[in-house]
Order: sequence, then C-alpha cells, then structure tokens
Amino acid sequence: MNIAVIGYGYWGPNLVRNFFAIENSKVLMVADPRSERLKIVNSIFPSIQTTENVADVFNNANVDAVLIATPVSTHYELARQALLHDKHVLIEKPMTRTSDEGRKLIELADQKNKLLMVDHTFLYTGAVQKMKELIRKGDIGNINYFDSTRINLGLFQPDMNVLWDLAPHDISILNYLIDEAPYSINATGVSHTKNDLENIAFMTVNFKSGLIAHFSCSWSSPVKLRMILVGGEKKMILYNDIEPTEKIKVYDTGYSVKTDEEKQKILIDYRVGDVYIPKLNMQEALAGMAKDFVTSIANKSKPLSDCQSGLGVVKILEAADISIKNKGREVIL
Amino acid sequence: MNIAVIGYGYWGPNLVRNFFAIENSKVLMVADPRSERLKIVNSIFPSIQTTENVADVFNNANVDAVLIATPVSTHYELARQALLHDKHVLIEKPMTRTSDEGRKLIELADQKNKLLMVDHTFLYTGAVQKMKELIRKGDIGNINYFDSTRINLGLFQPDMNVLWDLAPHDISILNYLIDEAPYSINATGVSHTKNDLENIAFMTVNFKSGLIAHFSCSWSSPVKLRMILVGGEKKMILYNDIEPTEKIKVYDTGYSVKTDEEKQKILIDYRVGDVYIPKLNMQEALAGMAKDFVTSIANKSKPLSDCQSGLGVVKILEAADISIKNKGREVIL
Amino acid sequence: MNIAVIGYGYWGPNLVRNFFAIENSKVLMVADPRSERLKIVNSIFPSIQTTENVADVFNNANVDAVLIATPVSTHYELARQALLHDKHVLIEKPMTRTSDEGRKLIELADQKNKLLMVDHTFLYTGAVQKMKELIRKGDIGNINYFDSTRINLGLFQPDMNVLWDLAPHDISILNYLIDEAPYSINATGVSHTKNDLENIAFMTVNFKSGLIAHFSCSWSSPVKLRMILVGGEKKMILYNDIEPTEKIKVYDTGYSVKTDEEKQKILIDYRVGDVYIPKLNMQEALAGMAKDFVTSIANKSKPLSDCQSGLGVVKILEAADISIKNKGREVIL
Amino acid sequence: MNIAVIGYGYWGPNLVRNFFAIENSKVLMVADPRSERLKIVNSIFPSIQTTENVADVFNNANVDAVLIATPVSTHYELARQALLHDKHVLIEKPMTRTSDEGRKLIELADQKNKLLMVDHTFLYTGAVQKMKELIRKGDIGNINYFDSTRINLGLFQPDMNVLWDLAPHDISILNYLIDEAPYSINATGVSHTKNDLENIAFMTVNFKSGLIAHFSCSWSSPVKLRMILVGGEKKMILYNDIEPTEKIKVYDTGYSVKTDEEKQKILIDYRVGDVYIPKLNMQEALAGMAKDFVTSIANKSKPLSDCQSGLGVVKILEAADISIKNKGREVIL
Repeated sequence: MNIAVIGYGYWGPNLVRNFFAIENSKVLMVADPRSERLKIVNSIFPSIQTTENVADVFNNANVDAVLIATPVSTHYELARQALLHDKHVLIEKPMTRTSDEGRKLIELADQKNKLLMVDHTFLYTGAVQKMKELIRKGDIGNINYFDSTRINLGLFQPDMNVLWDLAPHDISILNYLIDEAPYSINATGVSHTKNDLENIAFMTVNFKSGLIAHFSCSWSSPVKLRMILVGGEKKMILYNDIEPTEKIKVYDTGYSVKTDEEKQKILIDYRVGDVYIPKLNMQEALAGMAKDFVTSIANKSKPLSDCQSGLGVVKILEAADISIKNKGREVIL
Repeated sequence: MNIAVIGYGYWGPNLVRNFFAIENSKVLMVADPRSERLKIVNSIFPSIQTTENVADVFNNANVDAVLIATPVSTHYELARQALLHDKHVLIEKPMTRTSDEGRKLIELADQKNKLLMVDHTFLYTGAVQKMKELIRKGDIGNINYFDSTRINLGLFQPDMNVLWDLAPHDISILNYLIDEAPYSINATGVSHTKNDLENIAFMTVNFKSGLIAHFSCSWSSPVKLRMILVGGEKKMILYNDIEPTEKIKVYDTGYSVKTDEEKQKILIDYRVGDVYIPKLNMQEALAGMAKDFVTSIANKSKPLSDCQSGLGVVKILEAADISIKNKGREVIL
Repeated sequence: MNIAVIGYGYWGPNLVRNFFAIENSKVLMVADPRSERLKIVNSIFPSIQTTENVADVFNNANVDAVLIATPVSTHYELARQALLHDKHVLIEKPMTRTSDEGRKLIELADQKNKLLMVDHTFLYTGAVQKMKELIRKGDIGNINYFDSTRINLGLFQPDMNVLWDLAPHDISILNYLIDEAPYSINATGVSHTKNDLENIAFMTVNFKSGLIAHFSCSWSSPVKLRMILVGGEKKMILYNDIEPTEKIKVYDTGYSVKTDEEKQKILIDYRVGDVYIPKLNMQEALAGMAKDFVTSIANKSKPLSDCQSGLGVVKILEAADISIKNKGREVIL
Repeated sequence: MNIAVIGYGYWGPNLVRNFFAIENSKVLMVADPRSERLKIVNSIFPSIQTTENVADVFNNANVDAVLIATPVSTHYELARQALLHDKHVLIEKPMTRTSDEGRKLIELADQKNKLLMVDHTFLYTGAVQKMKELIRKGDIGNINYFDSTRINLGLFQPDMNVLWDLAPHDISILNYLIDEAPYSINATGVSHTKNDLENIAFMTVNFKSGLIAHFSCSWSSPVKLRMILVGGEKKMILYNDIEPTEKIKVYDTGYSVKTDEEKQKILIDYRVGDVYIPKLNMQEALAGMAKDFVTSIANKSKPLSDCQSGLGVVKILEAADISIKNKGREVIL
C-alpha cells in the first residue's frame, strides 16, 4: 500500500516513521506548504517524493491512502478531496470541526467504499487494551464513573480550546470502554487570553444509567497529570499514564448499597482488598494504529478507531462548546 | 474559660483533647444523647461532667463557650440556644444547613455580643498559612485558577451529599486565599444510592475577574487524593496534602500573553523555572484553631475562621445544590 | 497479669498505652529516675503507682512481668534482677550490649522458668507477616538476596552507633524470614562526631547458600527511606514502609540461569510479569506484640519475637562492630 | 573531523546519531564484524562506509578519530592500534580491563600527542553539572558522604560483574564532584550464576578526610532505582535520575556537632529547612560529550571526561574485584 502524508508538523514525522516500519506499507509522498519542512523529509528519507501542492497527492494514482495531519480546520476539505479521488483516509484527532462535517465524510466514504479512520492513538495502548479486556471479562462490573485529568503546561493552540486539544484522547477512551451512548453534556471553562479560547475547562458527560464521566483539561498547570479513574461495581481502575511501567492499577475496592427496610435507612458495605498491577503490552501505540489502518483496508474490516468513534468525539466536543457558551447548562446530545 | 462540648462522635474527642491542651481553657462538660459515648469520656477524663441532656449545658452558668460537633441539621438550633444563653459558640463545618440559618445566627451573636466561629480547621495548617503568605507578599501574582481534588473511599454521609461533606475544607481555603467575592456556581453530580445524595460531584465557582475555581469531590475513589493547584500570573502552587512533609511546592512556572498587533495573533511566552518547597509549620492545625477561639474571645478580636467565612461556605454549597438539581445551570450567588 | 514498666522515655508511653488496652493485662507500676517523667504518668493514669526506685518494682510481689524500656547498657542488669525476682521480662531492642549478656539472661530465664522476650515490634506488622506468609507458602522461592535501607535525619544516639539503633528492626526481619543461619559479616561505616560512633554504616551478612543480605543505615539523610527488597527465585518483594497502605508489592519478576553446554555459555531467562499489592492487616504492631507477650506467658508458649531472636540480632551487631574496627574484614559468626 | 565508529551494538547507534548531529564532525566509517549490524547502518545512513575488518579503519588516512564501542576486553588493543595509527580515541566506559592497560594507553596518547577520552556520559547531564556547580560555589559545604543506588532487572553481562557494568557511572560522578583522592576500597557481592561474576555487589570507598562513598549495584532488582545522595556540612542533595524533570533536590538540612566541654558530651544541632529543585539543562548528555570530544581535539584542550577520569574509575573497580575476592577486606588504592 502506498501512503501519502499531508502535513509534516509535530505529528507527521511520527506517521512517516511508523508507516515505514510496518509490512505492506510504503510512504510515497509527503505534502506540506512549508518548504523548510519538506527539506527535512528529503534529508532523512531521500526516497519520499515531496510537494508543496496537495493536489499532487490527490492526482497521483499510485497513492492508495492519505494520512491527514494538518490543523483541524482543514481536515474536512482535505479528507473530502482524498475520498473523491478514491483514496483511503486516516485523519488525526479531532476528526473535524463540526459533527456535520464528520457525518458528510462518513457518507462519502460509504459511497466511495473507502476506509475513513480517525487516529485515536490511545485506543492502541497496552493500558487501554487492558482496561477494555478487564471490563469485557466482567471483572470490573457495571461502570459507575469515569474521571479523567489531563493537565500540564501545554502549548496554547491558536485555533481550538483546550478541550478540543486534549479531551479527544479521553473521550475516545470513554466511548471505547463504555457501550452506553452518552446522554448530555455540561461544560465550564475560562480563557486567560483575548481570543476567547478556553485554556482551562471542565466537562461532565451524563448517561441515563447513572454513569457519570468527568474531564478536567488544562494548558496552565505546573505539573503534568494524565490520569483516569474508572469505578465499577466490582472493582476500580487507576490508569496513570505518567507511570513508566505500572500504568494500570486494579483495586479490589468497592461499596455496595443495601436498604434496611425496617429502619428505612441506606446501608453501605465497603470493601478494600488487594491491588493488582497487570503487565501491559508496551508496544508503541502508533505502530498498532498504523497496522490496524493497513490491515483494515486489506481485509475490508472495521478498525478499532473507526470514523464513528471519531464522530462520537466531535459530537461531545461540539456540545461542550455550546454548554460553555451557555454558562454550563446541560446540552442533550 | 470553661468549655462545653456538644456531640462526642468522631470529632468531639479531638476538640476535648485540644481545648484541654491550651492555656486558659478547660473542658467542663460534654453532652451527648448516647450514654455509651459519655462512658468513654468518664473513663479517660474523670474530671469532665457528662450529660445526655443538652439543656444542662445551656443552663450551666459556669460554661462560657460551647463547641457544637453534632450532625449539621442540629447546628442551627443548638447554636441559637447557646447564644440565647449567652455562651460563645464554635460550630463544626459546615456551619448550618442553609444560609438563612447562618445569617440569623450571625445576627443573634451580634445582638448578644458573643463570638460565633466556625471550625474550618484547614485554615490553621502550616500549608494554607504558607500559601496565604506567598499570595499576600505578591510572589504568586494575580490568581488565574484554583483547582481542588478531594477524593477517597469515604463514608457515605446519611444526611448530606459529598460536596457538603468534603468541599467545605477547600471552599474555606479558596475564600481565605482569594479576596474577590465569587460570582456564580455550576455543579454536577451523581448519586449511586436511592437517597439521592450525590456521592460524586463536581463544582465550578466563577469569578468576574476571570478566576475560575473547580472542586472535584468523591466518596467512591479507590485512591486518596487531597490536592489543590493554585495558578498565579507569576508562579503556581501545588498543595498536596498527602505528602508527609513536602506539602507545598512553588513552581516558578507561568505564561504571559501578548498580542502581536501586526499579525493579529496572540503570542504566549512560557516559562519553566526552579521549584521551591518551603518548610512548613507542622503544628497541629486544630490546636491553632482552639487557641484562636479562646484568644479571640479574650481579646474581643476577629478569628481567622469567623462566622462570615462559615456563611460564605454555606452560600456556595447551597448554590451548588440548586445547580445540581437544575442539571448544572449557572446559579448566581 | 500485672505489669511494671521500667523507663518512661520515648517508648515507655507506647508500652503503657498498649498493655492497658489488651485483655488480661494491667499496668501496675512505672519506674523512672526522672520525677518529671513520673508526673506525666500520674496526670494521665492516676491509677498507676510510680517510683524513682527500680527496686520497688522488683520487690513488689504483685508485679508479674517487667517491661524494660531503658538505655541498652542497663538492659542486662535490669533484666537479670527482674528474673531473679521471678518476673517475666520483655526487653526493648537491642536485647543487650553483648551476646554474652544475652546468653546469660537466656540461661537465667530457663532456670527460673520465666518468659524472656525481646520487643522486635516489626515482626508483628501486617507487612512482615504477609512476607513471611508468602515465603512460607513457597510463592517467592528460594531467597537470593535481602536488601534493606533505613535512613533519615535521625537523632544521633549518645551510647550506640547507627547500626545498633536502626538495624535491629531489619536484622530481626531477616532472621524471621530466613531459616538459614547467617555465616559471616562485613561492615563499614564512618563517624562524623568525635565520639567514634558511626552515624552512617553499611553491613553485608553472608550465608553459605549464596544468599546475601545488605543493610544501609544512616542518621544523616535528608530523606526518610524505609525499604527492604527480598529477591526470590520465583518472585521478588518490595517492602516500602513509607507507603501509607501499599507497603508490600510482589513482583512476578525473575531470572533463571541455564548453561548452554555446547557453547559453554550461561543463558539467563528474564521474566517480568504482573505486580500484586496484597491487602495487609493494619492493626498496630505494638498491640500484637503486647498480646503475644501476655498470651505466651499464659499458655507457656514461645512468642514470635523470642529471646533467641533477640540474641541473634545482638550477635550480628557485635560482629559488625568488630568488622568496622577491622576495616571491613569478614567476621565469622 | 572525520569519525569512525568501531562496534555497532547497543551504544554504537547513539554515537553515530550524535556525532552526525554536531558541527564540524562527520561519521565516515562504521566497523563491526557482524554483517547484519552493518546492513542496518547502510539502510539508514547510505553515506557511511562500513567494514567487517577493523584494519580498514586504522588504515584509512581520512579518519581523524575513532570511537570504540566494543566489549571492554577489546578496548585496550583497539585503542592502542588507533593511537599507533595517529587517530584520536574515544573509549566507552569502562576504559580498560586493568589499570595497567589504562596507564599504557595514556602514555601512548601522550607520545602521539592525540586525545584519549573516555565516555562517562553522565558527567554531561544537567543534573551532574548542577551538582558540581552547587558544590563549587560552596553551597553544600564539605562533603560528608556520597551514597549511590543503581539497581534494576538488568542484562547479566557475560564478561564483567555488575560493578564493572553499572558503577562506572556513579564512580565517575563521585570523582568529578570530589577533589580528594579516594584512599581505599571494601566490596562484597554475590554471584547467582556459575560464572562467578557478581550480579549483586556493594562497595565502600573510603577517604582520609572522613568522607565515605557507598555504591549499591544490582541486575536482580524488580524495581529500577537510580539515586545518589550527597551529604554536605551545609546542605544535602538527592539526585533521583528516575524523576522525569525534578532530578535534583537540594535540602537545606543538616546537623552540626558541638562538644559540651563541661558535661563531656557531644551535642548535635539539627536543621531542617526549605527544599529547592533547580531547573536543569535538559539537553541530551551524549550530545554534550560528543561536542566536548570534537572541541577538545580542535582546541587541544582537556575534556571533562578525560583519560585520567577513565583510569580513576578502572583503579577503583580493580580494587573492588580484589576486595570481593578477599572477602571484603580493605584494599588500599
């Protein structure tokens, strides 16, 4: 499979490196309007054809698939062109600026019978895979809450707020782990710049079942935290991505609620037990994603991080924007 | 000064021990309706008079001050009675069930010319004192955010939700550190029991200046976190109360926002510098609180954790309840 | 059982409190030459008889057992007198200044048919009990090494070096966990005071089987570390006593050594697997020790932390002193 | 400057990458007897000439400098040949198998007027540079102790024990930070394989001034620790290399010893103050080392990690071997 990468900024080089490393895949072209970025490609990978004109990619009949690693505002148009030119498409997260754009791309991919995939890399980590496995096997029980913190001194993005920048990772994990569809969103936040893009924001995702998900995102923290707590009826999981190896801790901790009919009181049984730190597959997540893309095209199968997953994330971010603008009121999805 | 303690449950013994230990103060009486609790008092402190009838406390002319450590629903009536009987009053947090009750108590204490104080113990910790000192000296600069996490596997309270139980600590710290009055509240949460008391809740406190404060509270976490981040324009503070000694870390970290007039772009200067861990006064906070109560009565001075501080906390909790019931919509204070 | 405590300094109050709390035991007397220490006893425990004259303890026929919590140089004579007066004896660690003294006390206790026990409190912690259980069940396999670090900014003792002060805890744990008798000792250290008592010292305990045990002790560290690594052929244990709850981590990690006969090479198979943090009994260790003392007297049974255990620790410390004085040369036990 | 790298195993690729990245340096050749290793070089760096015959390097007049990244047993002969062929030489640590070999190489480099340097990479880290700066400025005071722990589940080396593998890092740091020459060595250890190469070892380095240095090295630990404590009379440093950014903590902690002439007692004043975490230069250490090598040749100046530094490390390791073989007895350097 011949691959073209559009956009050689922060993430592009990682795509090139990983798609080179997997079997049955070859990076044929890199497009970027900045000539200085293309020079770097040329020096390291003399075999790759470079162009400042993205049309060269679309018009190259040898290109089977296009990877889009450009600013989010350009995702829709680039992906649309690629699909129209009968290329398979991988888009970096977040998929598009609006859910409407996302839906149109999905339709087009359907018509064209091409793979449209979104790169939610975290789904391919050993940590998230292990969490999914534990939940699927029933070890954790019904999920009561999902609480994510992703904060550090981060680069303020010029075209999106901190939720669009950081939360896609955690929302994609939530949607992957939980089968239930989210019901509504509340979000609050603040911008400390004049462009009104929130650099600190908090979001609650409500579910009909009583599950609550919360996201805390910040570009303004002196410490780096990357942490998700998943509380089930049977066990609870701490996913601390800062830990070099012990990323997942499974707590045999819980509480069960009973009602004492006689005394009309609620009784809670608490349980604190052993903790278990499973060994994780430490393979690079991006390599797994790349392989899933190539294999899904070859086998005409559905990848883990498919376009519906990408759309689900955008719908939640869109609702969060509306909630923030409406001072935190609930937005039904 | 002769002290009576009403309520000898979880916190009462700490009050007795600390008010015994300070100068010019003596615990004369302990009242509790549970005879088995009073037996414990008798065996350890034979000199203390015990009673199951709280009226004995109010009618004892030798009692100068009353400490109320009972369930919050009883605070108002007990404090009212104590003031009517010309006693000084210390109430455990939260002060009352409603701000209306709180305001009435403040009025009554004014009329009676008695001290009415609320025990927000955390204000007396070396950690909070150090944060206040750093902010007062201008080391931190204008505060941009305050982000608190207080979660663990906690006892589900039968008469209040998790915010009323855990957030008073952090709200009292916020109000103590920040001079600006909070403007509005958003809160979300979920109850996993049938009594509809939230065991997990999140609250945003908004300020007109752009300062944002956020509180994450849970009785349902497998890990215990007690952490506050305070972000200033000059420096940022991490207060990690789980750390045995290095509770406060001051980061010489920040960002400053400029506008590039020509390019119509916002430019951010990032700065990451040294970290400083100040030595803290490790004296027991409760002893400092007890001393402040006794000294404020003697000197007719205003204590650190005064009744207005107590009322301020209740107003925020009350607004949070309304916001949760209204699915997270903003409640103006 | 009527108990007398000799020495009411740092540890004495803990003994009084714990021996009061257990069934079938009552603290009758406290002896200490310092009247100001006895005043404290009187104020808190009016029922306890106090004396500055230790002979009062020995001559009191109602005293069944004597707890010795005085400086180590006095242990031998006080314990001897107590045994001669037909009292059971508990001695704080380290048992005696010399193994000769220790052996004489053991003989005397034998003749008198009285219990002689040494307070190695750590053996009664949930952490050490769990390690013993795991080793006994064969989960860990043959032990290859034991590596202990016990350092902090500690009080320089005026009458013993840092090994005598801190290492008894870890040596008693080693001897408890390992069935094999230690073969020899190497120790090095340095004194930064003029009294030639080492404030930093390192000790290796060698075993015939190839097991190696190492101890690092310091009163001069800015950080407090209390850590033991136990490496077995099957699994390895990290005991980190600073952790509030997750004190024991069991690593399914190991290596097995094979010989490739053909290539005349050694091949190592490495294995890194899950980690398991067992829930521990968090009961106060001192309470368990107190109960063991009282029960062992009542049942004429052998306590966990018996006099042979106390003697074993002294023999190793004695050998370490000789090794340090001989510039680290091996001392056969 | 034209560089040739001999040995393309674990470390070689890092050398190639770094010597390519610096100015005035170009990697001309890579030699390795394993053709499969050379193929990797060819695919990534088509411009580099590869050879299985090391003589090609020596006979290539265009090669100015040779980097030796082969097993330690080959270091002496390869470096000797390179010097005889008038090349500058960089040797990976440890420099040679014996101090005798090291001394001969130093003599030969002197005669040939060529740079002979040893790659003690850690000296070029921001952490070690900061420690040196703090000590040089007098902030730490006279150094009382140096205590290093470097343990993990490491690859058992087939040709050297764990001290030769891991301790060179820490010994080179010790020698760099401390001006005083070490006086003697004690070492103990154990081999759990039949080849008698210790996989766990402990070493004490004694100094005439009373400074003590201790090294704990293991390939058999389930946890990875990389930690050095440096205790000075004024302050103490914790260097924790596992920390991603806060690697150096400076404790304003200490004790000062006085003698009470009257009471003939030693009095210790303890001091615990603030902690300071300086910002470190996070540039890759290996890049700094490469630059130092190239610059020192160009300027005929002495590099930081010079051949005397390399020899000093070998002398200590050699003495440690003797001490271990003599059951821990002191070996005078």
